[in-house]
Amino acid sequence: MIPVELIGKKRRGGELSPDEIYYLVDGYVRGDIPDYQMAAWLMAVCFTGMTDAETLALTRCMVQSGRVVDLSDIPGVKVDKHSTGGVGDKVSILLAPLVASCGVPVPMISGRGLGHTGGTLDKLESIPGFRTDIDIEEYRELVRTVGVVMAGQTGELVPADKKMYALRDVTATVECIPLMAGSIMSKKIAGGVDALVLDVKTGSGAFIRDREGAVELARTLIGIGEGYGKRTIAFITDMNQPLGRAVGNRLEIIECAECLRGRNIEDLCALTLRLAGAMLFLGGKSDSVDAGIRTAKDALRSGKAYQKCIELVRAQGGDPSYIEDPTRFAPARVRTEVCAGESGYVAAIDNRGIGIAALAAGAGRMKVGDAVDPAAGIVVYKKIGDAVGNREPVATVYGSSETRVDDAARRVRAAYTIGVDRQEPPRLVYCMMDAHGYTEYS
Amino acid sequence: MIPVELIGKKRRGGELSPDEIYYLVDGYVRGDIPDYQMAAWLMAVCFTGMTDAETLALTRCMVQSGRVVDLSDIPGVKVDKHSTGGVGDKVSILLAPLVASCGVPVPMISGRGLGHTGGTLDKLESIPGFRTDIDIEEYRELVRTVGVVMAGQTGELVPADKKMYALRDVTATVECIPLMAGSIMSKKIAGGVDALVLDVKTGSGAFIRDREGAVELARTLIGIGEGYGKRTIAFITDMNQPLGRAVGNRLEIIECAECLRGRNIEDLCALTLRLAGAMLFLGGKSDSVDAGIRTAKDALRSGKAYQKCIELVRAQGGDPSYIEDPTRFAPARVRTEVCAGESGYVAAIDNRGIGIAALAAGAGRMKVGDAVDPAAGIVVYKKIGDAVGNREPVATVYGSSETRVDDAARRVRAAYTIGVDRQEPPRLVYCMMDAHGYTEYS
Repeated sequence: MIPVELIGKKRRGGELSPDEIYYLVDGYVRGDIPDYQMAAWLMAVCFTGMTDAETLALTRCMVQSGRVVDLSDIPGVKVDKHSTGGVGDKVSILLAPLVASCGVPVPMISGRGLGHTGGTLDKLESIPGFRTDIDIEEYRELVRTVGVVMAGQTGELVPADKKMYALRDVTATVECIPLMAGSIMSKKIAGGVDALVLDVKTGSGAFIRDREGAVELARTLIGIGEGYGKRTIAFITDMNQPLGRAVGNRLEIIECAECLRGRNIEDLCALTLRLAGAMLFLGGKSDSVDAGIRTAKDALRSGKAYQKCIELVRAQGGDPSYIEDPTRFAPARVRTEVCAGESGYVAAIDNRGIGIAALAAGAGRMKVGDAVDPAAGIVVYKKIGDAVGNREPVATVYGSSETRVDDAARRVRAAYTIGVDRQEPPRLVYCMMDAHGYTEYS
Repeated sequence: MIPVELIGKKRRGGELSPDEIYYLVDGYVRGDIPDYQMAAWLMAVCFTGMTDAETLALTRCMVQSGRVVDLSDIPGVKVDKHSTGGVGDKVSILLAPLVASCGVPVPMISGRGLGHTGGTLDKLESIPGFRTDIDIEEYRELVRTVGVVMAGQTGELVPADKKMYALRDVTATVECIPLMAGSIMSKKIAGGVDALVLDVKTGSGAFIRDREGAVELARTLIGIGEGYGKRTIAFITDMNQPLGRAVGNRLEIIECAECLRGRNIEDLCALTLRLAGAMLFLGGKSDSVDAGIRTAKDALRSGKAYQKCIELVRAQGGDPSYIEDPTRFAPARVRTEVCAGESGYVAAIDNRGIGIAALAAGAGRMKVGDAVDPAAGIVVYKKIGDAVGNREPVATVYGSSETRVDDAARRVRAAYTIGVDRQEPPRLVYCMMDAHGYTEYS
């Protein structure tokens, strides 16, 4: 096979055979297919798509590129959650210890910042000492002893995805349903889960902006999951504004620590509880998603989830004193407030613009291998529907240089639309989907 | 500016400003923008295209990436020819010395093999000693003293194109009108020409297969040329079968040497004379293209063109004895004949398939920096409309290993369609275009 012919076939809209997909993906992992050919192929896929057979073949190649963890000797139904990514989406950091504290083992494989969104691993690594490069033996041991692990896909697990994920991040090939589906499901399957909850984001800060696309992605993901015999529940949730208030690695850790210690950041906590409910249901710890939500709420209020988080941080080498007292984090060198400049109500937020602003402040990567600035980011004070005064700040931007912070602040201001009349805030969760059907929420 | 945002903007079909295009192209040349980001951007351009303003901005960036040769102190109207590339298209090797032998200076900048087609530089370098890495001083000197030079774009001339051309070759981003137009015109303008003849190929072996696309490319090229004040004539010519008989570097040099010494390979010689006629007309050496053709025919028959070719080869360090006696070239290690396997007439040739077969035999590159096998290639004996017997060979494949030659031979056989009724061969030249209009040939 000739790589350029396979790129050309996909460019012309042809369907690649499983062997052809294997040749590309395996060759890329082994270094025989260079980055630039994979980048061109990925961009062609963005335009011409993939059939279901191609998507499944891609997922299988990616799973086969590394080891598959066997957790069958550990008691309980192992359940993981995956979000398609958004701005300020730090749910995993709350959710994993919360669900584990209720007795469902959570073997979680997370990713790095991708496009305009942050990544759970980058966020966790802003806790001093926290290690996310966990090998398979330690991963199994943490699930067994702590009941939860939050790891990156190491060289052992899905090396194909690790390499392709980093490349897509810097080549504008993130927003692509089959590539997203293959990436998500290969990690989850290799991680050894028995069941899976998916948070598929839609709106101006999501990779898939429109509802139809989000539903299509959810169906593709559920199809792959069920094909592998893993029960899968998906929620379509809102990403038209940042989730919670913090956007940026350390800022988001601080917000999570506060929530675990009792602060109620309304949208963030409500979504976390909804996803926890589904995980407890799939994990056999409750008879319904709603019953699971009640169990999770108790665990959050009682401090059980907080204690499990402290245990998790310590087990992965992190210094839990930063969770116990987030004021220990050094402040960013530069900060500036962003004012509305007009009075009224927040009518809309270009949430992708907020994500790009955080990236410009230093919270994300311009190209593969760039370091992220853990202190950089944004805290927003105003969400859709909130009243705002002329000189009232809508957000604060943090970073290490004035140039970067000023650039980010301009982008934040441009992302806010202030109107005269109050808008209803968007619904937080639009619907729930599984292999059997679709439930719309009002 | 953030590279991934510019890639994303183009992916979404947006128009990039001249500054944004400069940022990408200049950054790529300087190594700040990596191959994989340029590859993704190029593939996005293939799908969403470029406006005329973007194409002109791209051309200007590419010209500005290096030096621009000033040939104004050399007497005469300097005229170059460019072909959009095809299978067996060795016209330049005949044409440059032919036109120069008639008194029109020919400063020719050529390229390497691209996609399924060969490149003039790769062909010339199969002449032992022949140097194509000519610096600007030597280039000027050769135009002044020999009246012709055949050079690659060195690091000095259009470094942006040199780097992008190599990348497009291996990422299936060759067939793209604005990228082709920018690549072609930047080289010609930097090379210091006063006027230009374009051979825009159409058919199964061309990058732009359909007539409409070829006409659009020709219009784009003529527009850029005239915008820079260079008189430009384009011909739309057939590429539904190899031009001449040889496909592959050394094999094509041998065929050219034979034609310069009096052999009449009908389509090859007729097209060369047509293009020569236009160059002599633009160069002020004849009153019309037809009068130019007559002048060129005399120069070919009299041996003037052959003598100029010997002079050119010697001046660029090549050993002219290989042109004087092509049997001096060592034969390929492996050869095999391809038989029709049925009787009838050649109804069609998948000419791209012939090009890919030559590449598979070793005549082209799988990825950037690969060496080409100068001896590898194909000689075809049967063209569209020719009668063929069951056991009669339609072609011979040459190469260095049996695996490669067998693979290529299978591809050659698959490229031939044999029919019961005789088909008319395709017209060689479809039309002529310039800034003033369009002349269709019958």
